Formats: sequence, structure tokens, C-alpha cells
Amino acid sequence: MEMVQTQYYTFGTPNAGLQLDCGREFGPITLAYETYGQLNADRSNAILLCHALSGDAHVVGISAEDGRKGWWELLLGPGKAFDTNRYFVICSNVLGGCKGSTGPMSPNPLTGQPYALDFPMVTVEDMVRAQKRLLDYLHIERLLTIAGGSMGGMQVLAWCQLYPEVVVSAMPIATSANLTAQGIAWNEIGRKAIMADQNWDGGNYYAPGHPRPEAGLAVARSVAHITYLSEESTSAKFGRRLRRRAAYSYGFGIDFEIESYLEHQGELFNRRFDANSYLYITRAMDYYDMSGGTGDLETAFASTQARYLFISFSSDWLYPPVRSLEMWQAAQRVGKSAQYVAAQAPFGHDSFLLESTQQAPAIIHFLDNLSNA
Amino acid sequence: MEMVQTQYYTFGTPNAGLQLDCGREFGPITLAYETYGQLNADRSNAILLCHALSGDAHVVGISAEDGRKGWWELLLGPGKAFDTNRYFVICSNVLGGCKGSTGPMSPNPLTGQPYALDFPMVTVEDMVRAQKRLLDYLHIERLLTIAGGSMGGMQVLAWCQLYPEVVVSAMPIATSANLTAQGIAWNEIGRKAIMADQNWDGGNYYAPGHPRPEAGLAVARSVAHITYLSEESTSAKFGRRLRRRAAYSYGFGIDFEIESYLEHQGELFNRRFDANSYLYITRAMDYYDMSGGTGDLETAFASTQARYLFISFSSDWLYPPVRSLEMWQAAQRVGKSAQYVAAQAPFGHDSFLLESTQQAPAIIHFLDNLSNA
Repeated sequence: MEMVQTQYYTFGTPNAGLQLDCGREFGPITLAYETYGQLNADRSNAILLCHALSGDAHVVGISAEDGRKGWWELLLGPGKAFDTNRYFVICSNVLGGCKGSTGPMSPNPLTGQPYALDFPMVTVEDMVRAQKRLLDYLHIERLLTIAGGSMGGMQVLAWCQLYPEVVVSAMPIATSANLTAQGIAWNEIGRKAIMADQNWDGGNYYAPGHPRPEAGLAVARSVAHITYLSEESTSAKFGRRLRRRAAYSYGFGIDFEIESYLEHQGELFNRRFDANSYLYITRAMDYYDMSGGTGDLETAFASTQARYLFISFSSDWLYPPVRSLEMWQAAQRVGKSAQYVAAQAPFGHDSFLLESTQQAPAIIHFLDNLSNA
Repeated sequence: MEMVQTQYYTFGTPNAGLQLDCGREFGPITLAYETYGQLNADRSNAILLCHALSGDAHVVGISAEDGRKGWWELLLGPGKAFDTNRYFVICSNVLGGCKGSTGPMSPNPLTGQPYALDFPMVTVEDMVRAQKRLLDYLHIERLLTIAGGSMGGMQVLAWCQLYPEVVVSAMPIATSANLTAQGIAWNEIGRKAIMADQNWDGGNYYAPGHPRPEAGLAVARSVAHITYLSEESTSAKFGRRLRRRAAYSYGFGIDFEIESYLEHQGELFNRRFDANSYLYITRAMDYYDMSGGTGDLETAFASTQARYLFISFSSDWLYPPVRSLEMWQAAQRVGKSAQYVAAQAPFGHDSFLLESTQQAPAIIHFLDNLSNA
């Protein structure tokens, strides 16, 4: 497997940075990004992939930084759906993230200290505006397609709205035009769990020797994790099986496999994610609303120019198929070219990371038709 | 509305108490209980109601202790499904609870200090064994029916298994023969949230002046609360409406109605519930398995003698209809008299507390047929 090097692009200053939705002018901003494949001569084969809440710029191959594999190995690479023999693929860590892009753990150049909660609130649209600056820097004026699942799908939608002239086609996958009250609730519960951890300390836990809000972040991750899985897949994978024991302990330790799994996932997440980034990014998801608070998706899609491929997964109860269906229907009603693949998959919301037998052919067919158009 | 006085029954000593599933002999045990209606001359009209995780002995009327209304006002009272003009109804707070029955916040008579985590692990079956002692004390040898939703339904099932000769009929409502991995996960997340709160302090937070793990318990309650509601009812009730504001705050305070609701519910719950009781009772739910770990419901039902009325609710995704269906089918296959009402209701798991147009007639019809049999 290929080694991939993360690259960095920095723009702006504290006085001339990015105009954010919250009203603040913010800079400088660094975006960590990776690219795969080669840009062709007429710069027409560029694809932007957008990562989800806990993702990063590393989509495929072995990360030169930490040796980890990418989050979309299944769909990106030579001969795969996003074929790196044909396309030039870019992915950047979101603004507000913690994997190389400027976020709450980054040092504030004015103080030399991490921003912590002095970091400005960023929206999905702000993340997209920052990505646009990266594309400008790379001299990419058109995106053959932009694709992403979950919050990545929200970025896809925001791209189509903010920069309609840039986006030839778009693939919002396992996503929705906004979160429901239940979706906001899961995020808020995660944030409350982090903030309830005394080690969070108002977000100021970055000093050497200061403990981190690991227990709180682990709870937040566990809540999210269960919402990413289907009841069916959780039952199939864990059931009521006990963990290395024949009988109940009659205690509060780990008795069940599912408990062991959650604990392990919490530990892994603490090693790779920053709790304050979790706060900011989940808030950006809460705030995102393609309809701008009106609920009117037709108007929202009317101003876009992309050709759409919506994909949903049957067992995804966090971003259920009906939320893709309503976008597909709204796009069609205002005359947009739009396809919708309602994939059958048992893995819940995580299906967008795990399923390829239906996603890959749909993506390949869609991209081939674009090239032939 | 009638004032209702809680009563108390205490039995056992540290050396001669209740033999618990965990192996400990435990006593003394006090059960807080309430009764409604009159026991008839041949003592044949007694009904036991079993409360859910956060419930208590107070089912209907104004509590003389705290002025609160009961949890099943909808179904219990003169002329209601459980008609107090006809039946003598008993409900007791579960062993391990915090509303008058012995639980982790009760003083250990050997030390004078609250048990905290020295309280023994209790199972649903242990709760039922304690209730049986209460019935013995009340000289009630037969229960015309025993009914309860959620964990109350688990107690109903355990009653049918442990004391088949006592239970004439049984109504397991919005329940299942055991929790799935997902159900265990929600409980474990709640426990982890409580234990992550530094104020929990290993369970030793009862001393005067010691802060309580309110933030942790609020997170646990929020997780549970969202699992009790359907996506449909949450969207209908809250949607994406903002709370007393016209625009986003771009901060981490309360922006959305759903956030305000969760915060309020967390505060209310902290006023009335003990965090350690939450740990113990959720663990009892995890451990409950009607099949004793075999998955064989037919054998489980074969040894029971009750006539059954199962009720489920269409929008309940925590205890979905299929879990009632499988119990109904198993009971029928081993020759038990069993009815199943798959009620349509939008309120999620909470439907068992909120729906009466389908529950009440089903219960009345079932009870009338028992009396006529």
C-alpha cells in the first residue's frame, strides 16, 4: 500500500482571513490535505472528498504521519470507484478539526496559546469556504464531483449552494439537508458529556500535565458510535455475549462484549481526537440547514447547478433513507438532474464506510456518464 | 384527586434477609408501597403493577409525600382500565430504588452510613422476590393480574417464572425477554456518564456538603430520554425550533428547543433520582434474561401458568414490537393462552405511559374475560 504524505496550505492573517458566518474575520488558517492521482492537462478530473465528523484528510493508503489506513479505502484507489488512475482526488481536514487543520487545539498566533474556546464557531459553510481557498491555491476551478458521507454530505450540499459554478456533480451520501431534533440531541448529549468532565476545565486542558477530558469524550463517542450502528448489526456482532467470562460478575465492570467494545472504541478515539474539536464540529452539524431555516428544499436546490447522485442505506436510522428521498425529490421538482440509490445494507449509518457492492457501481456509472456527457 | 399515602414494609435482618442472585444474603429490606381500591372478601381481586427504571410506588393520585401525580394516571383509577372500584391494586418501589425502598442511598444498619457501592447487586428476579415477601405480608396468595411496562414488564415475566402458582394472568407491556446489545449499550453509556462525573466519587457522594454527580446523571437521563421517544414525536414536538431566539448564538449554550428540554429534564431527574440507584437498576435490566442465557423462550414460557396479554407500540424502537411478537409466539407454541395487541402510537417507548385508547380497552377486555372464565 502506498505511503501518503499530508500537505499543508496556510492562508490569511488575523486581520485578513476568512469571513465566518458567526461574524468574525478569522486567520491565519491552515488546511491539512492529501491528494491522490494526477491532475490532467485541462484540469477537468478533480474530485473533492469531504470527511465526516471524526474523519480527516487521510482517505487511502498508509499515512506517512501515523501509519494509519484511510477512511475510504473501499472506494478510493486505482481501479476503484474513485479511480486514482483517472481522477485527481483531494481531501482536506475541516476547519475546526484536529488532524492538521486549524482548530481549537491550534496555537493562537496572538497569544501563543491554544485557542481552546476562543476559537470561533465555524459552520459547515465556513469549512467549505476554507476548502475553496485550498482549491484556488491548487488552481482548480471546476470539480468533476464532490462526494462525502454524513457531515461530509452536508459539505457537499453546502458546496453546491455556495459555489454552484464550481461543482459539476455532487454525491451527498448518507446525509440529510439538516439534522432533526433527535440528531441535535445526540450531539448535545455528547457535548454535555465532555463538558461534564471536570478535566475539560472550560476547554483549557492543553497545558502539559493537565489531564484531558477522556472520560467525557469516551461517553460522547459511545453515544455516537451506537447511533452509527444498526440494532441488527450490533446484535449480530455482540448479542448478549459475555466478555471472557462464563457468568455475570454482579458488578459494574465489563461483563458484556458490547461494553468491552465501547470502552475500547473510547480509548482509541481519545488517542486520535480532540474534545474541543468534537464540540465545534458537532455544533457545525447542528447548525447546518440547507434550507436556511425555511424547510424549503426546492428553493435551496433551485440555485444549484450540480448533477446529483444521492445514496442512502436501508439500516441507517441516523440519516434515514427518507431524508435522501426528500432531497432527491426536491432536486427533481426544480429540474435538476438527480439520481437516487437506496442501497440495502445492514451496517447502519456506518454503511457509507463499509458498503461497496452497491455504492461503487453507482458511483462509477454516474462518473462515466458525466465524462460522456 | 385523591391523596395517597405511601406505606412501608420491612423484613429480614443482616443475617436472615433475602437470598440474592449474586450470592449475598441481604437484609433488612424495606419496601415502599401504595395500594388503591379494596381487597375483596375472597382476596381474588389483587393486581400488582410494576414500575419502570425511573418509576416508583406512586401510580395514581396526589402523593401525600411530595404532591406529585402518579405515573399511570391514564390507566389506574375508578372506572379506568385498572378499575379501583373493582380491583385492589398494589405497587411497590423496587429493591435498589431510591423512592422509599432499600437501595444504595439507604443507611447500612451495620455502619450507619449509606450503602453506596456496598449495596449488593440486585437482579430483576431479586426485586420480584422482595415483592413476593410484601404480598405474603399482605396475605395475598393470588394475583388476578400483574402488569408493567419496560423494566416493569421484565418484572412481570420474572413473576411468571418464579411464582407461577401466584400469577393468574400477566401483562408484559412495551418490554422484551432481554435487552439487546444496543439496549445494554445505552445503559452502559448512562453508567459511564455518571461514573465519569468526578462528583460521583466512587459512589460516595452522600455526605452533607458533598456535591452530587448531577452533570453525569443528567447526561445519563438525556440518553435514556431520547431512546424513550420516537424520532417522529421528537421532530413533531421540537423540530429545529430555536429557544427564545431568532438566530443562532454561535456558541455552546442553548440554541434549540430540544436542548432546553433535555436540560430541564436533567434538572428534574436530579431532584428526584439517586445516581447510584440508576447504576444498580440499569444493571439489573442488562442482566435480565427470561431465557437464562439460552435464547430459548419456549422453555421459559413452558414452566409458567399465567394467561398473557402482550402489548407493544409501533414507534417503540427501544422495545420494538418484534420483541413482543416473539414472546407471544413462544408462549402460544407451548400452549399458553396469550393475546398480543400491537398498538399504533407515535410516542416511542413512552407510549406505554401516554397511550390509552388501545391499551385501556385491551386491558379491560382481558380482565373481564378472566373474571368470566
